[in-house]
Amino acid sequence: VRISELSRRTGVTIPTLKYYLREGLLPPGRRTARNQAEYTQEHVQRLRLIRILADIGGMKLRDIKPLLDAVEDDTVPVHQLLGMASYALGPAPSDEDRTPEVIRARAEVDRFLRSRGWRVTADAPGRRTLARALATLRLLGRDADIGVLEPYAQVAEALAPQEVATVDRTQSRDEAVEQVVIGTVVFEAALVALRRLAQEHQSALRFSRPGG
Amino acid sequence: VRISELSRRTGVTIPTLKYYLREGLLPPGRRTARNQAEYTQEHVQRLRLIRILADIGGMKLRDIKPLLDAVEDDTVPVHQLLGMASYALGPAPSDEDRTPEVIRARAEVDRFLRSRGWRVTADAPGRRTLARALATLRLLGRDADIGVLEPYAQVAEALAPQEVATVDRTQSRDEAVEQVVIGTVVFEAALVALRRLAQEHQSALRFSRPGG
Repeated sequence: VRISELSRRTGVTIPTLKYYLREGLLPPGRRTARNQAEYTQEHVQRLRLIRILADIGGMKLRDIKPLLDAVEDDTVPVHQLLGMASYALGPAPSDEDRTPEVIRARAEVDRFLRSRGWRVTADAPGRRTLARALATLRLLGRDADIGVLEPYAQVAEALAPQEVATVDRTQSRDEAVEQVVIGTVVFEAALVALRRLAQEHQSALRFSRPGG
Repeated sequence: VRISELSRRTGVTIPTLKYYLREGLLPPGRRTARNQAEYTQEHVQRLRLIRILADIGGMKLRDIKPLLDAVEDDTVPVHQLLGMASYALGPAPSDEDRTPEVIRARAEVDRFLRSRGWRVTADAPGRRTLARALATLRLLGRDADIGVLEPYAQVAEALAPQEVATVDRTQSRDEAVEQVVIGTVVFEAALVALRRLAQEHQSALRFSRPGG
């Protein structure tokens, strides 16, 4: 289809489409005349992925570009591609990670993950999140032994196989990345909500009995 | 101590302390002279709680005020107080909740929670989060049966008893509220990070084998 029809189908304005083409976020269409190109279902799919990365994943275009480059590059293995998608969700490194409390907590987190035998890279953003969380607890005067993470690590381990299994049933690399972002962000929100609801239920059982 | 010393000990500026006193966020000190009052350890604790509600809980002062009123009001039972603290973490209702997709999902969420026998109020914010998450999945073209929540509900149920047990060992109402906010927000971040790390590990096992 021509660019006007691509715009109509996807709801993305023509100036934005031209911007994406210029920045290499969208592969060029097949040139059919001096000033005209044909776009395909692949372009529709790519625009959907860009929207999901931006709206659901909260990513900036500068983080989306290298991810889409990896989607296009078939020499990047699927595991690495999915890791890139997950890492792009953050958190990015920040000054907070260089405070003494976070540095100390980070070393404990690294040991904790090693002791569980988890195969995660040294720059996985989750390590930062955990180190910051532990440091926060300690700055608030709670003696947070690394062992407080144990029950959470166990449920994460229990969930992961079925969660990751949903990814490799997908077809294209575009779709696999989409699945990782949606699966991570949307089900994370659901998990967090269910945790709060289960706590409310438990609190009701515990505190609201007569005389409780 | 006098207000200048309270400021020094807590790091809260005198103008901010006066603002908190005026707004009723901080109870008045014991008047010792025409223009002088004494503040105690209770004031230090209250200022700590305000900081935690604002910085960790991300709450606005207008949401903090009713919560602190309930802390002060001994006729509010502990279970209700802790519920208020948890609910103040949000999400608040929004226009999104009135879209047909979210309304339909909400009815399913309500049935789901009822079928599990969870004692949660009709206005628990977690119901909104779940309804929005389901609606998002469907708007993205995924057929998200309510059953997708099942494994997450199970781990939430497994975690809740030990999580809620940490609260009633605390002493004061101030501390109980503090514990709920920290426990909810900080361990939520940790849980989410561990989930992502466990997925990376699982993905490594699954996809990065030779020929995988």
